[in-house]
Amino acid sequence: MTRFTDITDAAIAIVAEQGMRGLTHRAVDGRAGLPLGTTSAYFRTRKALIEGLVRRLADLDNADIAAQSLDPPPADFAESVAAVLDTWLTTGRERTLARYACLLEATHHPELRTILEYGRTSRNQARALMEAAGVANPSQAGDHFVACVDGLLFDRMVGAGALTAPPPGTPANRADLTTAIRRLMTAFTAG
Amino acid sequence: MTRFTDITDAAIAIVAEQGMRGLTHRAVDGRAGLPLGTTSAYFRTRKALIEGLVRRLADLDNADIAAQSLDPPPADFAESVAAVLDTWLTTGRERTLARYACLLEATHHPELRTILEYGRTSRNQARALMEAAGVANPSQAGDHFVACVDGLLFDRMVGAGALTAPPPGTPANRADLTTAIRRLMTAFTAG
Repeated sequence: MTRFTDITDAAIAIVAEQGMRGLTHRAVDGRAGLPLGTTSAYFRTRKALIEGLVRRLADLDNADIAAQSLDPPPADFAESVAAVLDTWLTTGRERTLARYACLLEATHHPELRTILEYGRTSRNQARALMEAAGVANPSQAGDHFVACVDGLLFDRMVGAGALTAPPPGTPANRADLTTAIRRLMTAFTAG
Repeated sequence: MTRFTDITDAAIAIVAEQGMRGLTHRAVDGRAGLPLGTTSAYFRTRKALIEGLVRRLADLDNADIAAQSLDPPPADFAESVAAVLDTWLTTGRERTLARYACLLEATHHPELRTILEYGRTSRNQARALMEAAGVANPSQAGDHFVACVDGLLFDRMVGAGALTAPPPGTPANRADLTTAIRRLMTAFTAG
């Protein structure tokens, strides 16, 4: 752990629990158990603090994707993606909530829109998958596929799926997600 | 227009522009051009105000769905759903952003989780569609379908699709969404 990760992990936890509203330099110092002023010394502005948080989110998510060795696609790609989603619903829950909060914040703070670049890894991967399947428009099909997979996550995280889908962290949840993702793969690699 | 819609529409606009952070009774009075204290008289607590806002969101969204006559499903169901999504990205943009903000807020304010009931109309509709197609598990397939369609909307609204998908409000956007939804229908009615 470095000072950077101490600060940004504390920022992620605060945003997950209280929304962007709770994110102040002082709150991060308190949460991370650091002397008052430390966060300000690292990130002078709120914008800089949010950018640090977004960078940390991307690092952690990419580490999860790498851990599942999604590149090149494994034999059961759908099952591997389902496992990543299930991680983001459980141990990665704070990160997922913080990511949504940042995405919303970016709509009224255009300078934060770099967060949108964030999903590039999974989009490139999806495009490669579609190319390998010989799809006519791999970029379009890949983008649709990623948006739909993200929709499955969002639904379980904050949508009606939180009430109706199998509980996160269970084999039933991973099986249910695998079913959905397998169907998406068939649908988007068909055209 | 009634006082109820004046207040809740102003609340929606504030949440869309500033996030939940900006939502105060005083701010709503100002935005709606009402005498100070009016919003408090209608909705005593912040929770009541948010519940009013959520009720208004549901009314407006259901009106859009009814306007597209999605029940029973029209000949080109995918095209009709694409048209509704395109509306929510353009004239309904504020509502969509406010909905996401409320969903996130509900994760740390469990008393707001009634907002999750909100998507029941589209879920019931999707289940009926799956039943009509003779799908083995219509409830599961319908929920997956709705989550994926919502994912297409979220991606274009606040995700990377805001940079890469065709601009909202154009025939190109509706065509692109129709392509995706048609594939989803094939995927989820196949099982």
